[in-house]
Amino acid sequence: MPLHIQLERALREAIQKGRLSPGCMLPSTRVLGSELGLSRGVVVDAYEQLVAEGYLCSRRGSSTYVANRAPANNLPIIQVAAAVKPPLYDLRPGRPDHSLFPRRQWLSAMRRAMHAAPEMALDYPDAGGALPARVALAAYLNRSRATVTTADRIVLCTGFAQGMRLVCDTLKARRVRRIAVEDPGHAYESADVRASGLELVPVPVDDSGICVGQLAGLKVGAVYVTPAHQYPTGAVLSPERRTALLSWAEKQDAFVVEDDYDGEYRYDREPIGALQGLSPERVVYLGSASKTLAPALRIGWVLSPQSLIQDLSQAKLDADRGSSGIDQLALAEFIEGGHLDRYLRRTRLIYGRRRAQLAAALSRRLAGYSIGGVAAGLHLTLALPKHTDETGIVEEARRRGIYVHGLRSYRSQPRAGQPALLLGYCRLTDAAIDESASALATVVKSFELVNRRSRNI
Amino acid sequence: MPLHIQLERALREAIQKGRLSPGCMLPSTRVLGSELGLSRGVVVDAYEQLVAEGYLCSRRGSSTYVANRAPANNLPIIQVAAAVKPPLYDLRPGRPDHSLFPRRQWLSAMRRAMHAAPEMALDYPDAGGALPARVALAAYLNRSRATVTTADRIVLCTGFAQGMRLVCDTLKARRVRRIAVEDPGHAYESADVRASGLELVPVPVDDSGICVGQLAGLKVGAVYVTPAHQYPTGAVLSPERRTALLSWAEKQDAFVVEDDYDGEYRYDREPIGALQGLSPERVVYLGSASKTLAPALRIGWVLSPQSLIQDLSQAKLDADRGSSGIDQLALAEFIEGGHLDRYLRRTRLIYGRRRAQLAAALSRRLAGYSIGGVAAGLHLTLALPKHTDETGIVEEARRRGIYVHGLRSYRSQPRAGQPALLLGYCRLTDAAIDESASALATVVKSFELVNRRSRNI
Repeated sequence: MPLHIQLERALREAIQKGRLSPGCMLPSTRVLGSELGLSRGVVVDAYEQLVAEGYLCSRRGSSTYVANRAPANNLPIIQVAAAVKPPLYDLRPGRPDHSLFPRRQWLSAMRRAMHAAPEMALDYPDAGGALPARVALAAYLNRSRATVTTADRIVLCTGFAQGMRLVCDTLKARRVRRIAVEDPGHAYESADVRASGLELVPVPVDDSGICVGQLAGLKVGAVYVTPAHQYPTGAVLSPERRTALLSWAEKQDAFVVEDDYDGEYRYDREPIGALQGLSPERVVYLGSASKTLAPALRIGWVLSPQSLIQDLSQAKLDADRGSSGIDQLALAEFIEGGHLDRYLRRTRLIYGRRRAQLAAALSRRLAGYSIGGVAAGLHLTLALPKHTDETGIVEEARRRGIYVHGLRSYRSQPRAGQPALLLGYCRLTDAAIDESASALATVVKSFELVNRRSRNI
Repeated sequence: MPLHIQLERALREAIQKGRLSPGCMLPSTRVLGSELGLSRGVVVDAYEQLVAEGYLCSRRGSSTYVANRAPANNLPIIQVAAAVKPPLYDLRPGRPDHSLFPRRQWLSAMRRAMHAAPEMALDYPDAGGALPARVALAAYLNRSRATVTTADRIVLCTGFAQGMRLVCDTLKARRVRRIAVEDPGHAYESADVRASGLELVPVPVDDSGICVGQLAGLKVGAVYVTPAHQYPTGAVLSPERRTALLSWAEKQDAFVVEDDYDGEYRYDREPIGALQGLSPERVVYLGSASKTLAPALRIGWVLSPQSLIQDLSQAKLDADRGSSGIDQLALAEFIEGGHLDRYLRRTRLIYGRRRAQLAAALSRRLAGYSIGGVAAGLHLTLALPKHTDETGIVEEARRRGIYVHGLRSYRSQPRAGQPALLLGYCRLTDAAIDESASALATVVKSFELVNRRSRNI
């Protein structure tokens, strides 16, 4: 490193840290040069640079001094959060097993994408995202999720979360103020819908999914649903309600926002096709690679009705001028090379086995407790007897290293309804399933005892 | 593919495309099976799936018919925009030469990142982004841009554009309603600041950068500046104005938003350090990899004062739950392997040479025209005589395949001020520089003639 840059850094740091304070006179270039054994020119260069940057002032023919500025801020050192101790058993819902992530295949898709990308692909991406990725995705979703879309109706975005924000913002610009949401549901647990400022209108969920009959008279401009596998109860939206939901939307001129968060994972039969295919001009469909591949990729997509596509694309441009084009090209390579299908087949088998094992282990240890939502998805539900202290169980389990979610945080009114646990099984190795079920059962039973006692008193 | 899935797809598509219309009765499973030479069970499976998805209805003991639904939308086929013909000479400002992009080194950084990433890194990233990337970036920026920051004060985001949106939204939440911006400047040409809904208050720019004296009495809560190299005029903010700007901000309790969009590119001397280093609690610093590497990566960063970091992190979470953690880890590897420094040294030499060549070629062909902004950045300015039809030149040049920007679109009042062209030189090969200067000079001179004639008339 040249001497003048070394000197300049040392002086700059001394000023930044307050060791040289405002107004402080510096030695002349000749004096400092001879003191440090440097040529005068080196000191002149360093002074000039720091004058240009605003750290020093100099008057012609006069000496150089430290510029007046706000009192030096000694940057308080903030502790970077200590590495969180990983859970002993991670049964939180909605989390795929990252040890299965196909690192080699993803990297190789990235390599193919990087080698094949024309120079233009290194520029800002199109509003909707890299075209090859939209083409690949349209074909994949039409084939495997029974959607009806084309590349021009897709906006690629940063995961589901951004897609949902863009959709909500677009609806708001269309004067939608209220959105009906499933209760319990994702909207109460996560910030994305709430952050958009739309008013959430809760609609109850039963074993056939959202109670569509209750939408009548709610005065909402949209409804947000998870038809393939209700999150978090696991219910599948029944055929009658699918038809009724679309009729309602048609009559009200409302939009249906379909969150197909884990539509790919159905274990005992073929996955249920997306609602979007039944009414592509009425349903806004959202999906992502977060459950199928990994959240860290931050790749999501919106399939838009023709009437919203321009507004959605503009919202995406306004938000961030597009997501990474390189990552999108890698996704296109990954899909077109058949890797996504293969990876899904593989994980479906593994997750399906873990699901069956967990359900069996829980049945053995908690006879009489009802287990739900096993047909599909990445978690199941364990209903708890009425009045059980759900939060207490979640907290006690956590103390023992077992991470689970309670149903409460997904409800519009946390204290209403029957308590339940949501148990994700994807991250459990075969050995851990029995152990975690056993450990969890101990906690649940200890609360059963508390329950009985408190009722006796 | 199993037979029942083939049948199911054919039926679903027929319904989606309207060939089977609502209410249409389907043959019984026995009849259709024998007609198609399939077992009855295959037809039953297909019907059941389509009933579950809402395409078909069936009454117990009765026949199956197509569900009532909105009239089939024949998806109008939208033409995907035809591939745009690339320009003959691309002199648009702010665009790096993508043929230099270090594909091999970036891929290899990606490979190292992917191999080294712990499983946790595949999950949702931290609010500020992957920690190793923030650590690497803090060290790099403190060293090369003279900033004063730590990993805890950085929010990684999707390019500069999202960073600017997050900063604007955060300022709005702090009751900032008006932001002073450079005129001419980025804010008038691009959507990011405008999309945030802040009111833009123009402040003129001269050869010493933004006219800080004019900030007094403007009642703005923030000012957005490009101190290292004003965009688009190329002026460097003078030492006196740096001090005055920070004093003003201190007195007004306002924030300075520093856009260091091409701070790394300075050709005849060391780059001017960032303003942020002079006042880390007053200056919000924004940077990105779009000019130094490639826009398609969509990696940007905000260096935040302590007082804003929580709000900024939350805004990022609300917007999209974080950018790609994998890309961020690759950036960390790329920086720490010394590749960014090496790439910058290399491109600085190449761009510096192209800049000198273009300036020389223009001087030869357009004697008397003044060329500015050559000290730094990725473009220079060519001032046009007063009353020259700037838009006419830009359009005529484009017709001849020469893509340039006019200064107009960067002004608060497009018709005010002296006309000028902005000429990016990064993408021009040595041979193309002379040719493009010559072709452009022909266009400019043809308008000179028009100018003289119209004045004579």
